Amino acid sequence: MTERPEVLLPLKWDNDALLMLDQRLLPEETVYLRLTTPEQVWEGIRELKVRGAPAIGIAAAYGVVLGVLNFKGNLQELFQSVVQYADNLATSRPTAVNLFWALDRMKARTSALVEMNLTTEEVIDALINEAQQIHAEDEETNRLIGQHALSLFSDGMGVLTHCNAGGLATSKYGTALAPFYLALEEGINLKVFADETRPVLQGARLTAFELQQAGVDVTLICDNMAGHVMSKGWIQAVIVGTDRVAANGDVANKIGTYSVAVLAKAHQIPFYVACPLSTIDLSTPTGADIPIEQRNVDEVSHGFGKRTAPKGVNIYNPAFDITPNELVTAIITEKGIIRAPYSDSLKQLFSNKGSNS
Amino acid sequence: MTERPEVLLPLKWDNDALLMLDQRLLPEETVYLRLTTPEQVWEGIRELKVRGAPAIGIAAAYGVVLGVLNFKGNLQELFQSVVQYADNLATSRPTAVNLFWALDRMKARTSALVEMNLTTEEVIDALINEAQQIHAEDEETNRLIGQHALSLFSDGMGVLTHCNAGGLATSKYGTALAPFYLALEEGINLKVFADETRPVLQGARLTAFELQQAGVDVTLICDNMAGHVMSKGWIQAVIVGTDRVAANGDVANKIGTYSVAVLAKAHQIPFYVACPLSTIDLSTPTGADIPIEQRNVDEVSHGFGKRTAPKGVNIYNPAFDITPNELVTAIITEKGIIRAPYSDSLKQLFSNKGSNS
Repeated sequence: MTERPEVLLPLKWDNDALLMLDQRLLPEETVYLRLTTPEQVWEGIRELKVRGAPAIGIAAAYGVVLGVLNFKGNLQELFQSVVQYADNLATSRPTAVNLFWALDRMKARTSALVEMNLTTEEVIDALINEAQQIHAEDEETNRLIGQHALSLFSDGMGVLTHCNAGGLATSKYGTALAPFYLALEEGINLKVFADETRPVLQGARLTAFELQQAGVDVTLICDNMAGHVMSKGWIQAVIVGTDRVAANGDVANKIGTYSVAVLAKAHQIPFYVACPLSTIDLSTPTGADIPIEQRNVDEVSHGFGKRTAPKGVNIYNPAFDITPNELVTAIITEKGIIRAPYSDSLKQLFSNKGSNS
Repeated sequence: MTERPEVLLPLKWDNDALLMLDQRLLPEETVYLRLTTPEQVWEGIRELKVRGAPAIGIAAAYGVVLGVLNFKGNLQELFQSVVQYADNLATSRPTAVNLFWALDRMKARTSALVEMNLTTEEVIDALINEAQQIHAEDEETNRLIGQHALSLFSDGMGVLTHCNAGGLATSKYGTALAPFYLALEEGINLKVFADETRPVLQGARLTAFELQQAGVDVTLICDNMAGHVMSKGWIQAVIVGTDRVAANGDVANKIGTYSVAVLAKAHQIPFYVACPLSTIDLSTPTGADIPIEQRNVDEVSHGFGKRTAPKGVNIYNPAFDITPNELVTAIITEKGIIRAPYSDSLKQLFSNKGSNS
């Protein structure tokens, strides 16, 4: 068994500040920003210094904490302050449901704490604890997702992934990349192909980087090579993360995921989606109900410091796309592997969760 | 009828030199290199200063001419010199068959001229004329391809293209882009979507540029958005160029073309390939027999002037892929629109050509 190498953490809590790895500078520079206000966290999420659905949720929870760390006032004012910071942080990005999930959890926890007749200092301490709890739970969740996902893979398989649903997108280990770290520990050889993932190149800059650092066998390709490597018989499975799963199993994920899913189906390759339960939103009926963030066209025309498209040309730059449930072979969560029909299996998953916890 | 705007020409013959537009600098700079030796032409092709199957063929023909412009010796030595320059130019890139076609034509023409008992000066003048003829014929060919292709499109359609098979890839007008210029002249509104085409971004830098300059309604997308825009119902046809069509109708074209073809089929969108007869190689039985150029991995890791992938990571960078004939709805040539079964229809095309010419 190989010892797991140290992995780069996207977020660290440091007493009265959130240390946020500026992922826009990777792989060339490793810079942690010391954030002390919710506004800085909002900007960090908006500008993709931190990205990945679970990591965004964790960052937002700490953002709420930063807003009330030095709070002076009564309990009711404290509650209102938490709600205000949470509602503002919720506007940073529209698609990842973990953001809203984490903020709702912080608001609900505050509401419960306020009922307990504690001092404001005690409530604030408990909120710090809650954000750290969200952070710690995510790590355990990822490890469970990795174990379930690894059961689908076997030695010698080629596995393709898109974007970055790795340690850098979560607390640690990642969702879609978690099985690759576990495979390494267990001596199972997987050959990973990472789509570079235009426009922001999370696959090239983050997935290829974190897997290479850990010693995983990873090969970087451009997005448009995915069909070609499938046609060569090099890919036996696809696994990706997601920003939101609707109640019917439709999946929102980084732009390009839908193309990969169609290509996988055409080559009879299973297409897996890995995510924590907090990414599944039963209140969103279908993929058509998930808002798709449109991002600045400069991401396409000036990807990396120099202009690569003519001035003034029309550019379409959606950040996400929807993969319909019929293209999803299975959804892998901390509670196990879920299969179609998703309308039933996802509902079942949450009722089980209710009865177990 | 709108007057056709001036288009940027990739190649111009200027008495004793070949003016080659350095397409690597587009869209930011328009620089013509003045080439006076076959070695400079070889390098221009190799380094993608000129690219596109027809344009490569034209450039290579002029390259042979440059080698013998100041030739001193007898006719037999002149012939040997042409063969030597042609064989060397043929090593510049392996996939586009027009390169070999144009060089073979220059050799055959030299052989015929040498039989005619002309002076070496007269033969050299005739070779200059032959290269100019190849250049001029290509322009007429493109216009015919454009007319045939336009018959497949109607007002209001969305058409997606990959890479650059435009004026910059040919003498003028292009193959796959020719119908867009003709549509503009005829007042037919098409909405063109251009894949940016990683790693070298010919779609962003060249297709979006030349169509925008001409006034065509063009929207640039990243390669991984093709499936998404198809799923939105925005695309009614795909048209691409090709570097070589095998005898069975398999098509080699820029990497990513295969993915687009699979996506088109999944969305029941016709997938058209536009090319001159000189791109069809009946001596290549199937796509499996077409050599696929592997290019430097720096194109992927440093595509935008700065490193965007971790040092030392494995990268796979094929320049082309093969689209099997069953995904090709039709092949559009200067002689008309060819459909499956291609083994028969392509053979028929060349026997017709023989009887017509």
